[in-house]
Amino acid sequence: MSEKTKILETFENQYPDRDYKIVHTAPEFTSLCPKTGHPDFATLILEYVPDKLCVELKSYKLYLESFRNDGIYYESVTNKILDDLVEVCQPRYMKLTAKFNVRGGISSVVEVEYKKV
Amino acid sequence: MSEKTKILETFENQYPDRDYKIVHTAPEFTSLCPKTGHPDFATLILEYVPDKLCVELKSYKLYLESFRNDGIYYESVTNKILDDLVEVCQPRYMKLTAKFNVRGGISSVVEVEYKKV
Amino acid sequence: MSEKTKILETFENQYPDRDYKIVHTAPEFTSLCPKTGHPDFATLILEYVPDKLCVELKSYKLYLESFRNDGIYYESVTNKILDDLVEVCQPRYMKLTAKFNVRGGISSVVEVEYKKV
Amino acid sequence: MSEKTKILETFENQYPDRDYKIVHTAPEFTSLCPKTGHPDFATLILEYVPDKLCVELKSYKLYLESFRNDGIYYESVTNKILDDLVEVCQPRYMKLTAKFNVRGGISSVVEVEYKKV
Amino acid sequence: MSEKTKILETFENQYPDRDYKIVHTAPEFTSLCPKTGHPDFATLILEYVPDKLCVELKSYKLYLESFRNDGIYYESVTNKILDDLVEVCQPRYMKLTAKFNVRGGISSVVEVEYKKV
Amino acid sequence: MSEKTKILETFENQYPDRDYKIVHTAPEFTSLCPKTGHPDFATLILEYVPDKLCVELKSYKLYLESFRNDGIYYESVTNKILDDLVEVCQPRYMKLTAKFNVRGGISSVVEVEYKKV
Amino acid sequence: MSEKTKILETFENQYPDRDYKIVHTAPEFTSLCPKTGHPDFATLILEYVPDKLCVELKSYKLYLESFRNDGIYYESVTNKILDDLVEVCQPRYMKLTAKFNVRGGISSVVEVEYKKV
Amino acid sequence: MSEKTKILETFENQYPDRDYKIVHTAPEFTSLCPKTGHPDFATLILEYVPDKLCVELKSYKLYLESFRNDGIYYESVTNKILDDLVEVCQPRYMKLTAKFNVRGGISSVVEVEYKKV
Amino acid sequence: MSEKTKILETFENQYPDRDYKIVHTAPEFTSLCPKTGHPDFATLILEYVPDKLCVELKSYKLYLESFRNDGIYYESVTNKILDDLVEVCQPRYMKLTAKFNVRGGISSVVEVEYKKV
Amino acid sequence: MSEKTKILETFENQYPDRDYKIVHTAPEFTSLCPKTGHPDFATLILEYVPDKLCVELKSYKLYLESFRNDGIYYESVTNKILDDLVEVCQPRYMKLTAKFNVRGGISSVVEVEYKKV
Repeated sequence: MSEKTKILETFENQYPDRDYKIVHTAPEFTSLCPKTGHPDFATLILEYVPDKLCVELKSYKLYLESFRNDGIYYESVTNKILDDLVEVCQPRYMKLTAKFNVRGGISSVVEVEYKKV
Repeated sequence: MSEKTKILETFENQYPDRDYKIVHTAPEFTSLCPKTGHPDFATLILEYVPDKLCVELKSYKLYLESFRNDGIYYESVTNKILDDLVEVCQPRYMKLTAKFNVRGGISSVVEVEYKKV
Repeated sequence: MSEKTKILETFENQYPDRDYKIVHTAPEFTSLCPKTGHPDFATLILEYVPDKLCVELKSYKLYLESFRNDGIYYESVTNKILDDLVEVCQPRYMKLTAKFNVRGGISSVVEVEYKKV
Repeated sequence: MSEKTKILETFENQYPDRDYKIVHTAPEFTSLCPKTGHPDFATLILEYVPDKLCVELKSYKLYLESFRNDGIYYESVTNKILDDLVEVCQPRYMKLTAKFNVRGGISSVVEVEYKKV
Repeated sequence: MSEKTKILETFENQYPDRDYKIVHTAPEFTSLCPKTGHPDFATLILEYVPDKLCVELKSYKLYLESFRNDGIYYESVTNKILDDLVEVCQPRYMKLTAKFNVRGGISSVVEVEYKKV
Repeated sequence: MSEKTKILETFENQYPDRDYKIVHTAPEFTSLCPKTGHPDFATLILEYVPDKLCVELKSYKLYLESFRNDGIYYESVTNKILDDLVEVCQPRYMKLTAKFNVRGGISSVVEVEYKKV
Repeated sequence: MSEKTKILETFENQYPDRDYKIVHTAPEFTSLCPKTGHPDFATLILEYVPDKLCVELKSYKLYLESFRNDGIYYESVTNKILDDLVEVCQPRYMKLTAKFNVRGGISSVVEVEYKKV
Repeated sequence: MSEKTKILETFENQYPDRDYKIVHTAPEFTSLCPKTGHPDFATLILEYVPDKLCVELKSYKLYLESFRNDGIYYESVTNKILDDLVEVCQPRYMKLTAKFNVRGGISSVVEVEYKKV
Repeated sequence: MSEKTKILETFENQYPDRDYKIVHTAPEFTSLCPKTGHPDFATLILEYVPDKLCVELKSYKLYLESFRNDGIYYESVTNKILDDLVEVCQPRYMKLTAKFNVRGGISSVVEVEYKKV
Repeated sequence: MSEKTKILETFENQYPDRDYKIVHTAPEFTSLCPKTGHPDFATLILEYVPDKLCVELKSYKLYLESFRNDGIYYESVTNKILDDLVEVCQPRYMKLTAKFNVRGGISSVVEVEYKKV
């Protein structure tokens, strides 16, 4: 388990017999561009169907804040966050959509998905 | 039957031969966070296909108001309200979407569903 | 044929060989609450695929106005209007969506559908 | 070929091997109501998949302007424009959506579709 | 390889085992109308599922800027940009939607798609 | 005192030493057109600075409902409502803005004002 | 009195002792460009303080429709309509704002005002 | 000093030589209707120019939460909150705008102001 | 007279006795950044009160297009366009507002004004 | 001159004879809360009338980024940025509006102003 995933906490899903959806929208994500060192900004939309565990909201906030001074690309950070969350809470389904602010006149979205087999 | 479900009243569906949809949007739901004691706020969107019974609107409003000073988590309150409504009016289909206000810079949605087998 | 349906007029569909959709949105529907006597307000969205007959727009307006001083519930009025329109113009498909204004902090939608067999 | 369709011009589709979509939105369509003589106004949304020919945009504008002083019903004008465009450019698929302004408190949409067999 | 595609750069997809979506929205595309010489303006929405390569964002911006003084039609420029991007980064799926500003009272959208076979 | 003004009730202003503003927005006003008999609809925005008395909200709602089947023109009804409210609660300042729905393609606003001398 | 102003009718202001404002918004104004013959479209916002006479709404609608096939410039038509209305109803104050649709990528507004001396 | 004002805390204004404006928007205010016992909801917009003291944000939040189960009228609660804040932080200027949710089809705003003499 | 101002044409103001306002909104202005050579984009809002001459709309469009490949700063281009227009049409009042797109995460507006003395 | 103000650069105002307005909107400002260490986020709107010097945009961006890991209160950071900018570019007028994101259910704005005497 990496340093970052240790920040993430979970709590027991009280309704494991039902497939239901949880969405957390975090409009204050920020990290650094590895090339220029300038800050990037994104809104992260996390949508998942819990199995035995739910993501604890405060720890998720702290986990996202831990990227503040990391240099990391759009595609990498989106995939990494999904992988970390899947590892920690083993959901039935999870999707992460990251909507990055305009850079050079272009805005970008990265959308990654996980389905339990 | 719990104390809370006793508040809920129903009336007879006058068009039981037709599958049709009813949606009630309640933007004034509030309960307490069980950890901090501070109030939470949500918009509840209830969508259902009635069978023999419809949810009486005024009693639904009173039922929602009964959570005002209860300490209860996002995921629990959404599942509980669905369960109570299903128990009382036995619909053919029911979905409850709870959109909670921003906390710690993150807004949350919980969406639960029931289908008669 | 009831008093109300006599208000409704139709005209011949000039393109019966083609399945096509007509939508009429009427944001000024009003009737009375049978319990309190106070006025209710709704936007009615009528969507249909005509067969041999189309709903004449002016007569539809007069038909809707005829509910102005009637005491009738949300679910009943929506189902009744669909039934009347189906009886009069015998469409291939018809859907009526009634979006009622906020009452007691809650807004309601009723959505009913008809499919020719 | 009618007088009106003679206004419409086409140009050769340079990418006939690929199915792709073209949408033209014309918010300034106006004709006359055949009953009252008063002007009607609509936004026309034309969506199509070209085969060998594309609709030339300027001629389409002139074609739409030619209805300015014609008395014609909502349903008729929408079906007629689709028929004319299909006749002239023989598309793989075409849909025309006409959104008419409020008359008597009611706004109307007519949506017609063509699929090459 | 044409002059234009030489501007486009790629970088290695770090998550090739996962199908995921990248969207770049460029609201500042401009070229010239080949008939009149006047400038056209469009918002380009590029959506793709990368295989081994991703489009490098800065080079994509430069590539789009290279059309600034080119005379080229709506349909051609949209198809050409898709072809160039497919050639250079060989994605699993790619869609380009170009939304052109109002000309002669009509706005236009061209939407082209590529699927790896 | 007319029949209508008898419906209006007031309560004592608890803060008469301070000039402050109260605004009531009523989007469900409806009366009849005296010429055609068809219903008119308006949003009424009442803004006032109370002196000794405040308008009781429920009685104001009933007062507005009393116009439901009255035939009365836009300009008259707006001036009349202002006059009635001024007569009953004697405010320091009062403004009534009535925004009527589209009729014959034209929407209308009437705005009347009263200042205590 | 010109042909056009003969269309305009007035009715007596029932509240001449009070200065109050009437606004009519007509989003369906259309005339022709005198240079190109192509139609122009505008939203006309008429705001006035009546003296002895008010503009009759239906006649105002017919008056606006009378420009449908007239060739006339933006600045001229706006000034002319104000002059005609001032001549016919002699208001204490009148302002006409004409918001014309995009032509050549540019939208235009003309705003003219009259104050009784 | 009342029980409620004891909740409010202040901190020293670091820039007392400059007149500047602070605005706090609290969309989650709720109290009870003293007549019916049902909850009321409002957005409170507090705008002020500090003198020696600023309102501490967390204590302001707790202060607002203390009204949760109090029965109090729109006009009273708005005036009371202004008075409490003025008493505690003695600002140069302060305005409180309370926008209450729809009740009986009518939404209400109360706006009160304080100016240091 | 510079090369650029020669493009601008005027026509005689037909209503010189009245002070009235003309607004032209041009959302498609583009020039180049003199430092980086990359394109800048802006919406230009021109508002003026004509004296003897009005700006001819088509020539204004061509004048704006002439900046397409010029390297010029935000502040300079806004001041220069105002100066050119004032020189050519000698208005009673003129204001130019230029709203530039986001660069480096920051959007900029420059607003310049001229008043005849 | 402090470390931070050294980051700020200026360029000579080319139009010092004219009073004109420049507005820079920076929606990506972030610093840390000195109490909790958690990040704060704000949109900064800088509006000024230059005298001899203008704020160089890129250096302003770098200056704002320098607060990324500073612990500083809402009121302090807004006043400090204004003071720094006034010191460096000596404008005729300057206003800074900082709109902070929701914290504890409350969003805040701080607005400070400078006028040359």
